[in-house]
Amino acid sequence: MSNKLWEKNFEVNREIERFTVGNDREMDRYLAKYDVLGSMAHITMLAHIGLLEQRELTPLLAELKRIYALCEAGTFEIEDGVEDVHSQVELMLTRKLGDMGKKIHSGRSRNDQVLVDLKLFTRHELKEIVDQVKLLFDELIVKSNRYQTVLMPGYTHLQIAMPSSFGLWFGAYAESLTDDMLFLQAAYRLTNRNPLGSAAGYGSSFPLDRTMTTQLLGFDSMNYNVVYAQMGRGKTERNVAFAMASLAGTLSKLAFDACLFNCQNFGFVRLPKECTTGSSIMPHKKNPDVFELIRAKSNKIQALPQQIMLMMNNLPTGYFRDLQVIKEVFLPAFDELKDCLQMTAYIINRMEVNENILENPMYDPIFSVEEVNRRAASGTPFRDAYKQVGLEIETGTFKADRHVRHTHEGSIGNLCNDRIEQLMNETLKGFHFERMTEAERKLLE
Amino acid sequence: MSNKLWEKNFEVNREIERFTVGNDREMDRYLAKYDVLGSMAHITMLAHIGLLEQRELTPLLAELKRIYALCEAGTFEIEDGVEDVHSQVELMLTRKLGDMGKKIHSGRSRNDQVLVDLKLFTRHELKEIVDQVKLLFDELIVKSNRYQTVLMPGYTHLQIAMPSSFGLWFGAYAESLTDDMLFLQAAYRLTNRNPLGSAAGYGSSFPLDRTMTTQLLGFDSMNYNVVYAQMGRGKTERNVAFAMASLAGTLSKLAFDACLFNCQNFGFVRLPKECTTGSSIMPHKKNPDVFELIRAKSNKIQALPQQIMLMMNNLPTGYFRDLQVIKEVFLPAFDELKDCLQMTAYIINRMEVNENILENPMYDPIFSVEEVNRRAASGTPFRDAYKQVGLEIETGTFKADRHVRHTHEGSIGNLCNDRIEQLMNETLKGFHFERMTEAERKLLE
Amino acid sequence: MSNKLWEKNFEVNREIERFTVGNDREMDRYLAKYDVLGSMAHITMLAHIGLLEQRELTPLLAELKRIYALCEAGTFEIEDGVEDVHSQVELMLTRKLGDMGKKIHSGRSRNDQVLVDLKLFTRHELKEIVDQVKLLFDELIVKSNRYQTVLMPGYTHLQIAMPSSFGLWFGAYAESLTDDMLFLQAAYRLTNRNPLGSAAGYGSSFPLDRTMTTQLLGFDSMNYNVVYAQMGRGKTERNVAFAMASLAGTLSKLAFDACLFNCQNFGFVRLPKECTTGSSIMPHKKNPDVFELIRAKSNKIQALPQQIMLMMNNLPTGYFRDLQVIKEVFLPAFDELKDCLQMTAYIINRMEVNENILENPMYDPIFSVEEVNRRAASGTPFRDAYKQVGLEIETGTFKADRHVRHTHEGSIGNLCNDRIEQLMNETLKGFHFERMTEAERKLLE
Amino acid sequence: MSNKLWEKNFEVNREIERFTVGNDREMDRYLAKYDVLGSMAHITMLAHIGLLEQRELTPLLAELKRIYALCEAGTFEIEDGVEDVHSQVELMLTRKLGDMGKKIHSGRSRNDQVLVDLKLFTRHELKEIVDQVKLLFDELIVKSNRYQTVLMPGYTHLQIAMPSSFGLWFGAYAESLTDDMLFLQAAYRLTNRNPLGSAAGYGSSFPLDRTMTTQLLGFDSMNYNVVYAQMGRGKTERNVAFAMASLAGTLSKLAFDACLFNCQNFGFVRLPKECTTGSSIMPHKKNPDVFELIRAKSNKIQALPQQIMLMMNNLPTGYFRDLQVIKEVFLPAFDELKDCLQMTAYIINRMEVNENILENPMYDPIFSVEEVNRRAASGTPFRDAYKQVGLEIETGTFKADRHVRHTHEGSIGNLCNDRIEQLMNETLKGFHFERMTEAERKLLE
Repeated sequence: MSNKLWEKNFEVNREIERFTVGNDREMDRYLAKYDVLGSMAHITMLAHIGLLEQRELTPLLAELKRIYALCEAGTFEIEDGVEDVHSQVELMLTRKLGDMGKKIHSGRSRNDQVLVDLKLFTRHELKEIVDQVKLLFDELIVKSNRYQTVLMPGYTHLQIAMPSSFGLWFGAYAESLTDDMLFLQAAYRLTNRNPLGSAAGYGSSFPLDRTMTTQLLGFDSMNYNVVYAQMGRGKTERNVAFAMASLAGTLSKLAFDACLFNCQNFGFVRLPKECTTGSSIMPHKKNPDVFELIRAKSNKIQALPQQIMLMMNNLPTGYFRDLQVIKEVFLPAFDELKDCLQMTAYIINRMEVNENILENPMYDPIFSVEEVNRRAASGTPFRDAYKQVGLEIETGTFKADRHVRHTHEGSIGNLCNDRIEQLMNETLKGFHFERMTEAERKLLE
Repeated sequence: MSNKLWEKNFEVNREIERFTVGNDREMDRYLAKYDVLGSMAHITMLAHIGLLEQRELTPLLAELKRIYALCEAGTFEIEDGVEDVHSQVELMLTRKLGDMGKKIHSGRSRNDQVLVDLKLFTRHELKEIVDQVKLLFDELIVKSNRYQTVLMPGYTHLQIAMPSSFGLWFGAYAESLTDDMLFLQAAYRLTNRNPLGSAAGYGSSFPLDRTMTTQLLGFDSMNYNVVYAQMGRGKTERNVAFAMASLAGTLSKLAFDACLFNCQNFGFVRLPKECTTGSSIMPHKKNPDVFELIRAKSNKIQALPQQIMLMMNNLPTGYFRDLQVIKEVFLPAFDELKDCLQMTAYIINRMEVNENILENPMYDPIFSVEEVNRRAASGTPFRDAYKQVGLEIETGTFKADRHVRHTHEGSIGNLCNDRIEQLMNETLKGFHFERMTEAERKLLE
Repeated sequence: MSNKLWEKNFEVNREIERFTVGNDREMDRYLAKYDVLGSMAHITMLAHIGLLEQRELTPLLAELKRIYALCEAGTFEIEDGVEDVHSQVELMLTRKLGDMGKKIHSGRSRNDQVLVDLKLFTRHELKEIVDQVKLLFDELIVKSNRYQTVLMPGYTHLQIAMPSSFGLWFGAYAESLTDDMLFLQAAYRLTNRNPLGSAAGYGSSFPLDRTMTTQLLGFDSMNYNVVYAQMGRGKTERNVAFAMASLAGTLSKLAFDACLFNCQNFGFVRLPKECTTGSSIMPHKKNPDVFELIRAKSNKIQALPQQIMLMMNNLPTGYFRDLQVIKEVFLPAFDELKDCLQMTAYIINRMEVNENILENPMYDPIFSVEEVNRRAASGTPFRDAYKQVGLEIETGTFKADRHVRHTHEGSIGNLCNDRIEQLMNETLKGFHFERMTEAERKLLE
Repeated sequence: MSNKLWEKNFEVNREIERFTVGNDREMDRYLAKYDVLGSMAHITMLAHIGLLEQRELTPLLAELKRIYALCEAGTFEIEDGVEDVHSQVELMLTRKLGDMGKKIHSGRSRNDQVLVDLKLFTRHELKEIVDQVKLLFDELIVKSNRYQTVLMPGYTHLQIAMPSSFGLWFGAYAESLTDDMLFLQAAYRLTNRNPLGSAAGYGSSFPLDRTMTTQLLGFDSMNYNVVYAQMGRGKTERNVAFAMASLAGTLSKLAFDACLFNCQNFGFVRLPKECTTGSSIMPHKKNPDVFELIRAKSNKIQALPQQIMLMMNNLPTGYFRDLQVIKEVFLPAFDELKDCLQMTAYIINRMEVNENILENPMYDPIFSVEEVNRRAASGTPFRDAYKQVGLEIETGTFKADRHVRHTHEGSIGNLCNDRIEQLMNETLKGFHFERMTEAERKLLE
């Protein structure tokens, strides 16, 4: 790098180009497929309103489908010297079809093209995440049911406190995912609105039929107001990041618990061998590297909303180049989150639990509260029973009755996992992913 | 403050108490009303399952209603030397009813008592925020309709670019609120689940009827899993903060625009005199203090999720005292956000716009794109029309036709405000606030 | 609160005032003392350049000293209806001295008055924090020396790994404070520059002698450029918050360790009884509430920089009312941090350690690496020795030699605490607090 | 990607490896050079304490120097199947020198090898950033001096307020850099301490001479305490990120100002053509893309501390794999910041200012305060003069005297740029980079 750029003119333009393009071309690879879909809907609409002739539409659609297939096959490339995905697609069209290829840009601007690409990409990734969450959820429910009554100590303040069970522990994370799903759905709905036709953010004098592109692309509705359509850039990313952060928070906490329970001072769980790193010199050592990485990557995703906010905050209405930089942190985050989900589901599937934890007498006091409640249920005022038992423990006369008789909703004896599954399924139904997949299928058929 | 606390033993306990209590008593005032409601539901259920006799229930309920009325009237006080709201309520009950007053704690712990208080408080505050958002939304729609065709320049990169209108500008923020509402709803649903009965986070051996308290308090469902119920502490606050941050982001951006448009270099809007600070020495100066404060307070609220995350992240399952500190930043944020909403709605209601902006010829070039589209619509390929008009502008032969003919959905000629109102109303219906208000009304009748 | 403020005109001005004043008057109490000091320096300079006569200066200084004494005694009050500390001081002067009292504002604006108050307050608080850090540091060093060779297991990945000692553990936090001190010093130097004389951020036509006020107030230098002096608002707070966050990070980590070591599964430390919350029913339970609150409050302070950034970021040059809101989160943070420091020092002073941890054979494998190194030192290639010992452990033939012979710098046998103290003392010398205290003493004598 | 990884066993290990390795090999390329340097110092010390023979040391050093040269030439590669840079270097040594190559690992662990690599890398990058800051600083000073008296309006609340000058504006950012430099220096000092010899964070039974490696590598001191040496991982990155964020905040603000001043409604500056994006159709449009990207990238860097905090916060003492993920966000940030510095310096060098701004009468009121001060200086009490001039402006009788007579330190007439340069130079001297460069030169000679 030149220290004084202004003294070496020949390098200036190259350096500026490197700086402005950044890793945009790499980022655009995430968007290529969706750019093609957006263009197919747009030109179909252009033909409908008479801005494109049918004899133009047919070959353009055919060629776009071919490019889509290249994207699917992983062989789509942005050539050297081509600025971005939009130019690459146009180039491929004009090579094959001549000037007709340029018409795909009529009545829209780079701004709403990027917007629609981002929306189509994001809703697709959200669906994939939802699918992965469901897989993890199912694993957790299976484990929760299997270990419903395998007891473990429950902690408060990291002090041993009450009887808990692995059924409760696994089930808690399953239920946590049902709440994360609410935010994923809010994110999906916010995303699944059509910005196409907003042009540079102020609309167009073309008689565009935005209702038609909304239907063709299977959006729930439009971003009606064209100024708002552009304002959605940055806001969509931030709010989707909120939902991702909620989910990442659940994964991070699960990973933290598991790393703690894997510590020899606890010894509550056995992680799958292939997910730990041993040490030939210390065979007892089972470093939970995979869960540590899940935790760290999830924590990184939890920082995403603030990162996006710092870039978009305090900018007035209208497009700014700043918004391009958000892509760098936003687009790759989905793969990272999906990886974390997959790894977590894998470990949960293979994790084994220690069924004999409570044989260690250090955990006896967790049964004291049970005893208090038992006496309170027999008529002794709660606070008096509390004092009696405390005294017995202090004087060593307390006998731990290790039979746990919790029966109410959500307790060891009654996990309500079916109700939790019902919550999950109700929310899943509310996504209506079929609208998206059906519309995309039709466009491409 | 003593520098070496350990050398001054007499002060130690006082200092430690000051440190641990913090401003908890002040925070608990936010929760008092809801603590009473929670206790009413709890003891009604205790009587139902036979842990309380009817002759105890009746006076306890009567006394709790009286305490609720004190809260409503603003005369409820936590007395000196009383640790928190729960102890204060118990104290008031035992003063009046003797030992019977202690029974309100049977079958629950401080943990699930705080949890249910936080849930009841938060859902109530969310309803108030939703109501305020609707008021602001209505003001924006009124202004958008009124100024539909009053033109202003649209900017990209803060460079004058395209014709826009005040109708578009006001309407964009109205539509932004419809998307924020999706996250407020996700936050409300996550909140509106009943943690009561989870005890210290591991359930209870009492045969609690959690379904009954869920119905009595008008919750949508339970937090079923008792470990998850406790895990919801911190998570609820963080996710509600996500929704508040989304809304705050909209207010902050609106405020930024307004402050910019109020700058003499723009002169697009006139803010109400009572919301600006003048200067007798510079009568031209109209400092938009109220909007600046709305912006700053909204930006502070945008930092709330990260603040909560840093406190709760990387803690294992189970209660920690850390969670108490979250209250300090979470509880007061609702009043701050409601204030910002109220002030914004007031200013929007009174704001005047400059109807003659475009008389200044500096804005002429915004009509150039219209001309390009017009030619493209007449058959010239878009990119060729683009070059022609560019040449005319460069050579000074371009004539601006100031008539804007945008007709598509969401553009100046067709704002779709009715569709935006429909989006808002559909989301509003999904809250089902009536369940909450009806249940609380019944409990108190 | 009125829902539709614009329909209830009589309330409007009161509501707007409440909104704009916020808790400014409460915040100004932090600044009162420093406002008086700043005024004393300013008018002394005004007299020097002939803008105030000596017969005015003398009574004004006397009266200001009297007000300063009220601040010291805690009896200074901002009266109802008085906007802020500056107006209150002026009011008190004019009540006593008539119109002469108004002259303290000649040649400066509210902006640079607030700026200098913030600087004087902040440098004073930084000194107090530095003093408290030194006290904590000394406690840690004492404990480190005392427990130099009391062994504990060292963990990596929360897996037991190597022999460590309490001497190492306490000493690590002492050394951490020496690095935090570097950032506290950078923060102090950035703060300790004089903004007075910058007026509203663009200077003044008065022939102010800023060098003189710089000396009178004991600043290291000026903020020379007047535009920069104003730009320092927000930046000073953010960068001081960086330093506070660094220190808070150390406290939070220490608290986390201690809470973990206090868990019965570890049992490494005994916290002072008065800093834990017991439970009569579970006498084994020693909830480390004080350390949990230290952790949470420290984590809250770690969020401070981001909170300030979100408020000040993306604002152009020049004062904005937004900066007022930063005071709300910045000014109280010092007391919170000092409280955390005091409590930590107290606990460290009283904390007891378990001297028999390693009697538990579960920790034997931590001596395996020692054995490998011993063989490697005797000539066996490191990786071969590593394999031999691993095999012995696997086959159960490994004999743990619990004698640890670490001798190099910074290891158990050679903690280098004297070198760490030297690092600390060198940095402490670099503050030159005496310049500040001496200047303030002179002004007030 | 397999949806149910556990059903496709053959893929599992590959997926887990992909997940755990992540982009570590890419990250390690940043560290290769420094890994070699660290090893050279380490083995030189090993020979000194008799753990390596001279006949081994000589060829090992020679080979390491050759590898260093490959790094410098950009031809060092981590081969497929080789896990990281440390293994690659060992592989290259053993290929050439046989088993002797393995001895570079005697007496240290992967942990302190990564630590020392990070420290050497970071101090080097900090030096590069400091150099770039100095270049930018010099440009700003040149421009400040050149345009000392070219007036522009000064704004408060984005309302035109007072006379300012481009000299003040450029100079303000120069001075801002002097304060950023204080934090860069604190970061450098914290970084420039030697962790080598801390092994896995608990020291070693080898009689290592850590003083010797400290001198060989030109560190200011050791991280003495071996537990603290490891604790510095994450903390170093976070605190260096604080310093980077401070600097990035200055760049972001400068970029924001420039983008605003480039707006046609201001028209204060002309950015170099090659740093704006025009539009053939709207020749007036000069989108300040480069400054927008500088702003966004700087804002991204401002989010770095919080991102790191979320990953490292609330982890107890000792190494965790989580720390690896910090590398992904930390290592590339230096190039991004250097790019922003270089681009900013280039634009400042080429930027032109509008010298005739104040000919527009809209700016006349900025001279009113001058007039008030003038009258106050002539004896009229300040507040009375204030009222007189206000009245004249209101009645249209005010005559703007455009001659600005600011003379005090830091005002238009007396920028004090020489004093600001002195501040900068004093801080620069405090880095003592020569110790680092000299030590590295000696090692490699």
